[in-house]
Amino acid sequence: MEKFVEQTLLYDFYGELLTERQRQVYESVVLDDCSLSEVAEELSISRQGVHDMIRRCNSILAEYENKLHLVERFVDIRSKIRRISALADDAGIREITAICTEVLEEL
Amino acid sequence: MEKFVEQTLLYDFYGELLTERQRQVYESVVLDDCSLSEVAEELSISRQGVHDMIRRCNSILAEYENKLHLVERFVDIRSKIRRISALADDAGIREITAICTEVLEEL
Repeated sequence: MEKFVEQTLLYDFYGELLTERQRQVYESVVLDDCSLSEVAEELSISRQGVHDMIRRCNSILAEYENKLHLVERFVDIRSKIRRISALADDAGIREITAICTEVLEEL
Repeated sequence: MEKFVEQTLLYDFYGELLTERQRQVYESVVLDDCSLSEVAEELSISRQGVHDMIRRCNSILAEYENKLHLVERFVDIRSKIRRISALADDAGIREITAICTEVLEEL
């Protein structure tokens, strides 16, 4: 999986377990692609401090995934739902396609 | 949701985030239905101690669900997959039914 996609998924699943401060930094740097210096200035901490927080967040998120494997399960289930959706589409069973769309939105 | 089912689901999702000792007590009392006294004797702690550990575990598990809502999401997705499976069954599309079975096993 591409690193950015993986980080986004990990954050999507476990982000709520970080502190508010960690979330703020992680979202700015990793998801919104702000520079370390930019975020450092905004929060009045050092560039190194931001860098360390990101590393710490990555390690916390990876640790949760290591224990719970939710992203792994999710990615696998998502690909199966897509396969079901394609099959239902071929067979013209709209009700199944509609439910698949709902599930994919929730995943 | 029935309390036992809910506890089982919460434990299934977040149990790995408890300590080994907490897991041991939780599994014995909640999942295997051993008595508090039995577990207390086995671990050489007081009956009250076991009782407190279970309360603490329930509160930790509920806190994770409160933040991550994974049980809620998965219960909803599971019921949708069951509906897809029934529709595919009616339409005789075995490939979809088979994938649904796989997904339900992973959920």
